[in-house]
Amino acid sequence: MEQRVSLLTLGVSDLKRARVFYEALGWATGAAPEDDVVFFQAGGAVLALWDRERLAEDSGVTDGGGWGGVTLAHNVRSPAEVDEVMAQAEAAGAAIPRHAGETFWGGYSGVFVDPDGHPWEVAHNPHWTLRDDGSVDLG
Amino acid sequence: MEQRVSLLTLGVSDLKRARVFYEALGWATGAAPEDDVVFFQAGGAVLALWDRERLAEDSGVTDGGGWGGVTLAHNVRSPAEVDEVMAQAEAAGAAIPRHAGETFWGGYSGVFVDPDGHPWEVAHNPHWTLRDDGSVDLG
Repeated sequence: MEQRVSLLTLGVSDLKRARVFYEALGWATGAAPEDDVVFFQAGGAVLALWDRERLAEDSGVTDGGGWGGVTLAHNVRSPAEVDEVMAQAEAAGAAIPRHAGETFWGGYSGVFVDPDGHPWEVAHNPHWTLRDDGSVDLG
Repeated sequence: MEQRVSLLTLGVSDLKRARVFYEALGWATGAAPEDDVVFFQAGGAVLALWDRERLAEDSGVTDGGGWGGVTLAHNVRSPAEVDEVMAQAEAAGAAIPRHAGETFWGGYSGVFVDPDGHPWEVAHNPHWTLRDDGSVDLG
């Protein structure tokens, strides 16, 4: 199994609301308005929004009903850029359980939560290299 | 906010068991045996394994205790490669809630679940382009 993730599907309860949220963050999709799944190119992977009940059924799992042990992160090039993305997420209607600040691991980050409860850490990690295309190189 | 995911953290209850599982899939990490977080380069992103309770606290969320609406996928180049990866995951101890077969969207896929309940779809999608490095191009 090659060492990569191709697709990340987020289960949502209201597809239109979820789509509008990610579009408000500046993300663009080629999905038609009536499509029942919305794909966003996300670097070399894809992020999808799909009905959570159908995703649970398709994945062969039982829905715990809340958060299930997965957190996404979006790394940026400076603490100032963390502040900018956090402000953008808050303006788009995200909940902000952790405002941006210094972290225990020597970086700077905050967390926003999308309308379906999926948390995103927005982080500047001075120990990691971000390539020009935004991909991460652990070295 | 740029259109990409940098890091995907999977909450785990037994870090050593989780690490051994992903290593059995052929993944390599630079983490030391005593590290409390294990990072894997995953294409242009990073997949991390971390204690689920600490992840919940760090993410500012309440743990629902089960699956929480996120499914990962690993896309490959042929149905035969789906079968190979599914067999590898089963041999590594994954649960198999959905064996590989034709899908309603015209592809071929199966689902395995890692030791902490995180589902992965292994898929061949004839409508998507996989670049040589394995990244996905929605076009």
